[in-house]
Amino acid sequence: MNIAMDFLKNFSDIIGLIAGIITTSALVPQAIKIYRSKSAKDISLTMFVFLAIGIALWFIYGLILKEIPLILANFVSLLLTFSIILMKIKYG
Amino acid sequence: MNIAMDFLKNFSDIIGLIAGIITTSALVPQAIKIYRSKSAKDISLTMFVFLAIGIALWFIYGLILKEIPLILANFVSLLLTFSIILMKIKYG
Repeated sequence: MNIAMDFLKNFSDIIGLIAGIITTSALVPQAIKIYRSKSAKDISLTMFVFLAIGIALWFIYGLILKEIPLILANFVSLLLTFSIILMKIKYG
Repeated sequence: MNIAMDFLKNFSDIIGLIAGIITTSALVPQAIKIYRSKSAKDISLTMFVFLAIGIALWFIYGLILKEIPLILANFVSLLLTFSIILMKIKYG
C-alpha cells in the first residue's frame, strides 16, 4: 500500500511538473510576440490581470498543500504574466 | 491536530476554488474580445496550444490528487482554451 501511495505521489509530482513547465512556457511565446511586434492590441488586459490574481492564489494554494509543482510553476508564471501586463500597458 | 488539518484542508480548497474561478474566468474576456473584433493577430497560437496541453496535464494531476479545485478549474479552462484556438485558426 505504501509503495502504491509513493508511486502515485511521484507520478503526480512528475505530471504536475510537466504541466507546470508547459503552462508556464505557454506564456513565453506570447511575451516574445508582443515584444517583437510592439503590438498588443488583440490582447485582453482584463485576461492577464485576472490571470495574475488567480496565479497568485494558485501559488498560495500550492504553499498550503506543500506541492512543489504548483509552487514553482505559479511563481514563474506570475513573473511572465506581469511582463505581459507591463508590455500591454506600454504598447497598447 | 485533526481540527487544524481539517481547517487547512478547507482553507486550501477555498483558496484553490477562488484561484480556479479567477484563472478560468481570465480566459472569458480574451475569448469575447476575439469573437467581437473577429481579430486574433496579436494572439500567439503557440501559447494557447501549449496552454491546452498543460491544462490537460493539470487536470490529470488534479484527478490523481483528488483535488476538486484543480479538476473543475482545469476542465472548464480546457474548453475555453479550445474555443480561443478555434477562433485564432478561423480569424487569424
